Amino acid sequence: MSRLDSFIRRLEAQRACLDFSLQNLVPGAVIELGLGNGRSYDHLSERLAGSGRTIYALDRQLAAHPDCVPAELILGDFRDTLPRLAVRLGRTVAFVHADTGSGDEAASRAQALALPALLDPLLVDGAIVVSDQDMAPGWEALPLPDGVAPGRYFIWRRSANHSSA
Amino acid sequence: MSRLDSFIRRLEAQRACLDFSLQNLVPGAVIELGLGNGRSYDHLSERLAGSGRTIYALDRQLAAHPDCVPAELILGDFRDTLPRLAVRLGRTVAFVHADTGSGDEAASRAQALALPALLDPLLVDGAIVVSDQDMAPGWEALPLPDGVAPGRYFIWRRSANHSSA
Repeated sequence: MSRLDSFIRRLEAQRACLDFSLQNLVPGAVIELGLGNGRSYDHLSERLAGSGRTIYALDRQLAAHPDCVPAELILGDFRDTLPRLAVRLGRTVAFVHADTGSGDEAASRAQALALPALLDPLLVDGAIVVSDQDMAPGWEALPLPDGVAPGRYFIWRRSANHSSA
Repeated sequence: MSRLDSFIRRLEAQRACLDFSLQNLVPGAVIELGLGNGRSYDHLSERLAGSGRTIYALDRQLAAHPDCVPAELILGDFRDTLPRLAVRLGRTVAFVHADTGSGDEAASRAQALALPALLDPLLVDGAIVVSDQDMAPGWEALPLPDGVAPGRYFIWRRSANHSSA
């Protein structure tokens, strides 16, 4: 499988997991964690248009397409920005897309493992978290949509019974 | 259609056009014009493994993944590098993939229109050119593979009867 094949599969898996998860969201805000160039933010914006949900986009620095700079943009290290957002919003977030992997696999994995504890204080009961990385959280793992191979993308649901991140 | 949808369609079209074109290549070398991060170069390398064809990768500057730096890498402006390559190789190239579009549509279009005259002296009779841009060449336009919308990608064949680039 070429890098082009692999990249297409990853993007198709991302889109399938986003579309699948958005079908049954509980009420609440949305977080795009790892804005990057803004393609999946644009996808969430389009799919959630008219829903009244605010989408908060977080990243270390802005690399998004100029036509696609989010209204609610929060720049900085997630270890700083997520705790501040939790103070600001409280437990009001229904959906998180964490697309945080970089070319450095070890760094990506270490960062992913730190995210559940940072995200959990923001999540309402029944919130869904979709990620390109295995965060190994205490949340409940959900089945992946058809065509998405295990390990390629991840979907979890935070519930009162699985709240220990 | 979101930017994610559009990007996936573009990559799927790219792969479909590459795979379709590689099925019936005449003998000769290969040019990847616009190496970028090297995903389509990697795809060509994999699909052509064992064929004995040399793949020349050209770009303005190197941005490819470190694991994927081509053996035959030629950096510089295409207006300089293509004429030099034509002197070096003569008319020995059977396949060109030109993935030269950037965020600047006007610049991408102007560059694309200059490419046929730069490429033609390299192409053997029956050579195939695949591009993300409409180069408006004198070469014969070929039908696109199933699922690729007209205008999304382009395939041409250079023949003695259509040699005026």
